Amino acid sequence: MRVGVLGPQGTFSEIAAKKWHHGCRVRYFEEIPDVAEAVMSGEIDAGVLPIENSIEGSVNITLDLLSDRKVKIIGEVVVPVMHHLLAKTGAEKIYTIVSHPQALAQCRCFIRSQFSGVELKTTSSTASAAKLAAQTQGVAAIASVESAKIYGLSILAENIQDVSGNFTRFAVLGCKDVSLSEGMCKTSVILHLKHNRAGALYELLGEFAKRGIDLTKIESRPTKKALEDYLFYVDFKGHIKEERIAFLLEGVREHVDRLKVLGSYPVATAQLRCAENNRELLITK
Amino acid sequence: MRVGVLGPQGTFSEIAAKKWHHGCRVRYFEEIPDVAEAVMSGEIDAGVLPIENSIEGSVNITLDLLSDRKVKIIGEVVVPVMHHLLAKTGAEKIYTIVSHPQALAQCRCFIRSQFSGVELKTTSSTASAAKLAAQTQGVAAIASVESAKIYGLSILAENIQDVSGNFTRFAVLGCKDVSLSEGMCKTSVILHLKHNRAGALYELLGEFAKRGIDLTKIESRPTKKALEDYLFYVDFKGHIKEERIAFLLEGVREHVDRLKVLGSYPVATAQLRCAENNRELLITK
Repeated sequence: MRVGVLGPQGTFSEIAAKKWHHGCRVRYFEEIPDVAEAVMSGEIDAGVLPIENSIEGSVNITLDLLSDRKVKIIGEVVVPVMHHLLAKTGAEKIYTIVSHPQALAQCRCFIRSQFSGVELKTTSSTASAAKLAAQTQGVAAIASVESAKIYGLSILAENIQDVSGNFTRFAVLGCKDVSLSEGMCKTSVILHLKHNRAGALYELLGEFAKRGIDLTKIESRPTKKALEDYLFYVDFKGHIKEERIAFLLEGVREHVDRLKVLGSYPVATAQLRCAENNRELLITK
Repeated sequence: MRVGVLGPQGTFSEIAAKKWHHGCRVRYFEEIPDVAEAVMSGEIDAGVLPIENSIEGSVNITLDLLSDRKVKIIGEVVVPVMHHLLAKTGAEKIYTIVSHPQALAQCRCFIRSQFSGVELKTTSSTASAAKLAAQTQGVAAIASVESAKIYGLSILAENIQDVSGNFTRFAVLGCKDVSLSEGMCKTSVILHLKHNRAGALYELLGEFAKRGIDLTKIESRPTKKALEDYLFYVDFKGHIKEERIAFLLEGVREHVDRLKVLGSYPVATAQLRCAENNRELLITK
């Protein structure tokens, strides 16, 4: 199983990939869209991309490519995120803090209170930030404990994220549908309402409500055509191979002028969502 | 009228502030939360903050502070965004591109195709990126034509945003309620559903639908407590001083365990939403 992630070695995406499929062969890509393209070309069997963080919210670049590219969601993984401030051993003064924009955002309060005025620089991943910090005096990276080990960095400050209980949900992309399994499944769709009038969203949600189907997420993204014109990303419990979900989608189609079914896949297990368990899992990995 | 914006001179926020109140005295702040704090302390009469872009979506830092701080929304302004690549005159090679993270995101395809591998660095605003580019050889900024003028930079590439028709909506923050006026008004609220069960959001939206009240936006943001636990940011047509809106809010309260009314304010006029008009407005400013 060849699984593509955002590289270099040591990213949270790699941790997620290994959690999703123990013993997979990890391939590293420079940017999130590269992973999706490699899935589409068949260069890799699956791609693991961050889709949502419990503090910062959705990862827009991932949501946008789910809308634009021919990829399916075949699974999900939840990984606890603990950010640390890392620098070369013996670093005296920090002039620059580098990390992925989402990690910088998740540590906004820490940076503001402890490093106000320090230059912030973005990198394509937390691991590449750690790599950069290992090469340059005065540069600190926000990254994982795994990255500290891989790049030989000291931990200047531990758990610097603004809120405890920081989790990232990853979507596993693939090209094939996932068959109906015994466990709890979830389906992800993207849709655009046919009519922009009072009650249109309400009527759409009525299709779910009247069948007792539980929405786990509804998120709006701009269509990129105009302000106040949105695509809705909806996740709900159930598998497209179930009859009630087939009827649901039939009902949904009456309200939309675009419907993209991203896929049905097993819900990340409860154990994966428990903070304490995850903390141990991460540390013992 | 003292109006606070994200500085330095020449940001899109400043353009928005001047559009909202001609002849206002603009004060510059270093970061978005500083503007909100200055509104709360009475240091300024209003603050103009970006809240939503037609390509990149919501500005999370603004949404989050609307939830956390005691501020009201007293108005909105829509500004067309045209990004240009700016550098010192005679620049030969560009090693680094600097800008606000949202601007970098809005020009993702341009950067990927023309400047693949170039270092990306974030700044707190597009104008401060232009200021930085004016100080350093080999650094290009993504910023407005106003910034090019202010900081004496050449335009290397025009209109580099990924999609034409790029608009940013700004929220005007204040401390006082806006009285009911003759024009079309809009109300913004933040709410958290009391029950996390199938149909809960549907039932909430029923309160709007049965009164024919038009939602202009619904956006979810993490509560920051757990994954899949969301606050909803809802904008709808109408003013809280109208009787039907008072009844609506009474109905809404039955479904939520948190309701924050951010304010009622005049909708940005149609002319402000027209691409061609705005293009002229921006250029002649």
